[in-house]
Amino acid sequence: MTKAPALLPEGLRDRLPRQAEAASRVTRALVDAMRAHGYGRVAPPLAEFRETLSGDDARAARDLLRFTDPVSQRTLALRPDITRQVGRIATSLLAAAPRPLRLCYAGQVVKLRASQLRPAREMLQVGAELIGSDSVAAAREIVSVAIDALDAAGIGSATIDFTLPDVVDLLASGPLPVAADRENLRDALDAKDAGALVRLGAQAYLPLLRATGPFDRALADLRAFDREGTLASRLDALEAIAAPIRQRAALTLDPTERHGFAYQSWFGFQIFVPGHGDAIGRGGGYAIPLGEEQEEPAVGFSLYPDPLIDDGLGAANEAERRIFLPLGHDAALAASLRADGWRTIAALTEADEAGRLGCGWSLGPDGPVAV
Amino acid sequence: MTKAPALLPEGLRDRLPRQAEAASRVTRALVDAMRAHGYGRVAPPLAEFRETLSGDDARAARDLLRFTDPVSQRTLALRPDITRQVGRIATSLLAAAPRPLRLCYAGQVVKLRASQLRPAREMLQVGAELIGSDSVAAAREIVSVAIDALDAAGIGSATIDFTLPDVVDLLASGPLPVAADRENLRDALDAKDAGALVRLGAQAYLPLLRATGPFDRALADLRAFDREGTLASRLDALEAIAAPIRQRAALTLDPTERHGFAYQSWFGFQIFVPGHGDAIGRGGGYAIPLGEEQEEPAVGFSLYPDPLIDDGLGAANEAERRIFLPLGHDAALAASLRADGWRTIAALTEADEAGRLGCGWSLGPDGPVAV
Repeated sequence: MTKAPALLPEGLRDRLPRQAEAASRVTRALVDAMRAHGYGRVAPPLAEFRETLSGDDARAARDLLRFTDPVSQRTLALRPDITRQVGRIATSLLAAAPRPLRLCYAGQVVKLRASQLRPAREMLQVGAELIGSDSVAAAREIVSVAIDALDAAGIGSATIDFTLPDVVDLLASGPLPVAADRENLRDALDAKDAGALVRLGAQAYLPLLRATGPFDRALADLRAFDREGTLASRLDALEAIAAPIRQRAALTLDPTERHGFAYQSWFGFQIFVPGHGDAIGRGGGYAIPLGEEQEEPAVGFSLYPDPLIDDGLGAANEAERRIFLPLGHDAALAASLRADGWRTIAALTEADEAGRLGCGWSLGPDGPVAV
Repeated sequence: MTKAPALLPEGLRDRLPRQAEAASRVTRALVDAMRAHGYGRVAPPLAEFRETLSGDDARAARDLLRFTDPVSQRTLALRPDITRQVGRIATSLLAAAPRPLRLCYAGQVVKLRASQLRPAREMLQVGAELIGSDSVAAAREIVSVAIDALDAAGIGSATIDFTLPDVVDLLASGPLPVAADRENLRDALDAKDAGALVRLGAQAYLPLLRATGPFDRALADLRAFDREGTLASRLDALEAIAAPIRQRAALTLDPTERHGFAYQSWFGFQIFVPGHGDAIGRGGGYAIPLGEEQEEPAVGFSLYPDPLIDDGLGAANEAERRIFLPLGHDAALAASLRADGWRTIAALTEADEAGRLGCGWSLGPDGPVAV
C-alpha cells in the first residue's frame, strides 16, 4: 500500500463509515418525519436539461455544473437544488394529482462553486414541499413539519428566523411610497444600511431596521410601526405560524432579510443551529411557474444537514454491538444475533481477532463474551 | 396547469412516491443486511476526476459521462460504478485500516449510454466489498451476504450463476495448451461457439461448453473433464462457497461465461431473478491496483435493483394507514398517531376531505374512523 492517496476534485469528498452511516441515519429520520405528515417521497434524476433546472433565472444558470450530453446533444446540468425539480414533477407528472400535494425528497445536489463558508460542492439536501397552497394554514403546517423533522433527527435547539419577503412592496405601494428604485430600497434594507436609506429618501423605512430580533419584540415593533395596518394580515399570519412551535424552537424575526432567495412569496424562514453561523435550512412560500403567466402557489423547506453530521449528528458508538465470530462459529446463532441488532464480523483466518477488527464482543461457546 | 409536461433527457426519469418510497425501503433493507455483517457504509462523491473513475481501462473511459470542471479546469465524470470508488477509498483514506476491510454502499450511478435491455442511464447501485482477501472464506462470506441482502429486501427465489474467470488460463497453461490466441479462445467459449473452437484447434475445450447449467451437474461434468485435477482447487472452492446457500438460492455454473467483466480474478457470479432476463447483480473476486505493480485482493458484489422496484419490489399499500385530520383536530393526538406509524394528512381548508387525499381513515372525536 505504497500508493499516494488518490485526490478528489475540490469540494468533493468521500464519507467514511462514521459519517456515511450518520448521514444515512439523519436522512432516514428526516424523511420518516415528513412521510408521517403525509409527504410522499419523490426522486428526480441527478441531471436534467439546463433550462429545466434554472428556468429564466440567469444567476441560477451561471451556478450550474453543465455538460453536453452526447446522447441528446443538449446541455445538461447536475442539479444544484431539488426543490425546483419537485415543482417540475408537481406540475407535469403530478399535474392531475389532488391538491394540496405533499411531496418530500432527499438526495445529493452539486454546485458549480463552493462558498467560503461551505467548501463542499456536493451536499445532502432533504426537504418537503406542499403544493397547491401558500395559505397561512399551509405555512403553519410546513414550519411545524420542519420542526418535527429536526426533532426526529436529533437537531435540538434550532432557531427559526422568519422574514416577510413582500414587506417593501406592501409598504411602497401603500402608505410609504418612495421615489427610489424599489430594488435599491430592498438592498439597503437587506444590508441594514441606514445611511443608504437616508440617501434614497426612505427615512420612513428606518424603523424597519430596528424591528428585528426575538420574535415577540420584533413583532411588537412592527405593529407599532405599521400604523395603517398595511402589514396586519402578514403579522397575524406570522403569529399563527409561530403559535404551535413556540415551545419547540427559538423564534426570531428579520422582516427585510432576504435570505439569499429571490423567489419567496409572502413569508420565508431560515433555520439556525447553535455553533453554525450559516443557516442549515430555509423555506417559505413561493410560486411554481406554469407557463402562460400562470403559476401554482406552494410552501416548502430544505435542510442541508452536512455541517451538523460533520459535527457528530447521527453518530453512534456501536463498538459494543460489534461481535466477532470465530472460525467454526454456529451460523444460525450468528444470524439470530444479527436479527437482534448485533453487527457480526466473521473470522476468515486464524489471524483475525476481535480487537483488531473493532469488536467489543466475541461469540463464545455460551454466547457473547466481552473482550 | 396548461403547461406541457417537462421533458427529461433520454434515460433519466423521475420516481414518483410509490417507486421512490419502494426504492428507499429496498435500499434500507439491503444496506442494513450488509451492515449487520459488519460492512461499514461509505459514500463517495457523485463525480470524480476521469482518471480515477476509469483507470487505464479504455473501454471504461469511453463509457463515462464527462465534463470539464470550471474550478479545477480538469475533466471530471459522473460515476458509472461505485465499486471502483470504494477500492480507491480502501487503498487511500483507509489504507491503514485493519484487513479484512468490509465496506458497503448505496447510491446512484450514471452511464453515458443506455443499453437496449436497460434504458435507464441513471440507476441505483447497492453493494458490499470485502477488501484484503479473495480467499475461499472471503468468497463464501460475500456470496452469503448477498443472499442475506436479497432476502432482507424481499427478493426471493434468486439464481446465483457462478463462473470461473481464469479457467482458460489454468487449462491453457497446463494440460491443454493451444496455439490460438487465448483471447480468441475465451471469446469462442464465452460465445459457446463450438465451430470457432474447432477452427482454433481447441477441440479439447469442447466439453467445457456442455459443463454448464445446474450447479451439481455442471460441477460433475467439470470434474470428469478435468482429468489432471488442474481445476480441482477451483471446483472445491465453488463447492465450499455454495454449501451455505444451497437451500436459499438456485445455483448454476457457467465456467467460461465472462459476465461482461474483465477484472474478476478466480471466481465470479451473477444474480438472476425470475422474470428478468438481465442479471440484477453480479460479483466476484478482483484486485485493486496499488501502483508499482502491486495490488490488493478483494471480493464483492453489486446489485442493481431498479427493474425489481419497477415491478413492485418494496411497494407498500399504505392507503389504510393514511389518516385524514379534520380542521381543529387535536395536535397531540395527531402526533401520537404518527408515533404509532400512521401517516397523517391534515386539512388546510374546509374543502379538503379524506377520500380525495387518499386517506382510508379520518380522525373522529373518538379516534380513527374508516372512510
